[in-house]
Amino acid sequence: MKVVTEIGEYRKLRKGMPSPVGFVPTMGYLHQGHLALVQQARAENKTVVVSIFVNPTQFGPKDDLAAYPRDPERDLALLEKEGTDIVFMPSAEEMYPEGFSSWVEVDKVTDRLEGAFRPGHFRGVATIVAKLFNSVQPHRAYFGQKDAQQLIVIKKMVSDLNMDLEVVAVPTVRDPDGLAMSSRNTYLDPEERKAALVLWNALSLAQELWSKGERNAERLRQEMSALIQKEPRAKIDYVSVADPDSLEELSQIEGTALVSMAVRIGKTRLIDNITLG
Amino acid sequence: MKVVTEIGEYRKLRKGMPSPVGFVPTMGYLHQGHLALVQQARAENKTVVVSIFVNPTQFGPKDDLAAYPRDPERDLALLEKEGTDIVFMPSAEEMYPEGFSSWVEVDKVTDRLEGAFRPGHFRGVATIVAKLFNSVQPHRAYFGQKDAQQLIVIKKMVSDLNMDLEVVAVPTVRDPDGLAMSSRNTYLDPEERKAALVLWNALSLAQELWSKGERNAERLRQEMSALIQKEPRAKIDYVSVADPDSLEELSQIEGTALVSMAVRIGKTRLIDNITLG
Repeated sequence: MKVVTEIGEYRKLRKGMPSPVGFVPTMGYLHQGHLALVQQARAENKTVVVSIFVNPTQFGPKDDLAAYPRDPERDLALLEKEGTDIVFMPSAEEMYPEGFSSWVEVDKVTDRLEGAFRPGHFRGVATIVAKLFNSVQPHRAYFGQKDAQQLIVIKKMVSDLNMDLEVVAVPTVRDPDGLAMSSRNTYLDPEERKAALVLWNALSLAQELWSKGERNAERLRQEMSALIQKEPRAKIDYVSVADPDSLEELSQIEGTALVSMAVRIGKTRLIDNITLG
Repeated sequence: MKVVTEIGEYRKLRKGMPSPVGFVPTMGYLHQGHLALVQQARAENKTVVVSIFVNPTQFGPKDDLAAYPRDPERDLALLEKEGTDIVFMPSAEEMYPEGFSSWVEVDKVTDRLEGAFRPGHFRGVATIVAKLFNSVQPHRAYFGQKDAQQLIVIKKMVSDLNMDLEVVAVPTVRDPDGLAMSSRNTYLDPEERKAALVLWNALSLAQELWSKGERNAERLRQEMSALIQKEPRAKIDYVSVADPDSLEELSQIEGTALVSMAVRIGKTRLIDNITLG
């Protein structure tokens, strides 16, 4: 496994890489969710590239950029074990040199949900992902279904801008009790960790109601919200039952629906989702 | 020479193309200025790809999109003669399918000059050029120095977004009397054609004053403006003496300066520039 910090150095290596190249972009502090992406990339490609970069432009002024957890040594050990070929670990200066001023913006699907609560977030995500794609030049890129809206934004960007690669969605990995894996789970104290289960419980409730034939989206939102509100440590940012392409809120579920939520547990903001249908 | 209208079809051909691939993006209605780009691409690459696409997103609501001159048959004959390998001629629907919503925006250098007079123009330019680069996948791309700000915007985009190609600037081709070649020259009636020479005369005056030691940028702007204003058919949008990287207006010329202007001759808006130093 080779660790590369500069794009120029990477480009030289890129020429000799066996194809196809699978790529997993991460912000580090890896958990089983990330490793599932790496494992799938390993299974499907001749070369596996993982990036570790805590991207400042996707954090808002009130977000947790400075506090975002980091443990590069542990990350590298985990990636080595998974058979990663190249780890791309650029500095902030390498990715955003003085005078940087070009951005990729995806309109419309970024107006809602996470986009509405985190202005500028998806501009930062789309821009860094475009930069990483252009640098790494993968055939396939792997993203977790847990960040459902991010996945939609990136697929839209790739399609609209004619980027020549395949975006692969990988199912969310959960703790045994259902909590979706997230680097931010590390912020939770033991009481909050228990309270955080309310996200999965609400999603499970939606799944159950849907299985019993409930197709009224507002009813699902209400039932999930009521369940979450019973947990005193939880504060809802949004609870959504939306069209999985446009992210428009549904009134009636006809085909598939993306059920998603953002809930703050103490100071930690968690997101999760499932797809119905 | 092969004419390709779909990206999927192009991608298949791309795999078999001898490297390096040189690319000339155009809006068609080709003149000697375009052909100089093609000639340089031909001299420097194994494969030459030219695109013809009148990009709707770079025209404003009051711009001349519908009236923009087109003559694809003549264009193809000219490109064949120059030894072009592939002409990529997509439809508007191919490049902007229903629901298109991703954009590349370059900030700051787009605030001034053309950007100030044509809001959204450079967003359209950067977006289509990014799409064409991602589709065509060239090693080198050729742009005319005549669109000086466009060249700066594209170089900035390529650098900021880590696009893996070289942007090559090609000197402006002029009619024998000095008028810069432009597809829009075709709009000029005989009297306007004469009046249009005022752009080159003003640039020549700046060059002459600079050669004699004038380094006061405001003096150059004044002298050029005074000359242009003597021509009753000419209306100035801007006359600029600016830093060639930031496009900030200079007060004193210390290193190099980009002298540029936009002047309306009747209903036709013309731009031109030279670099001093």
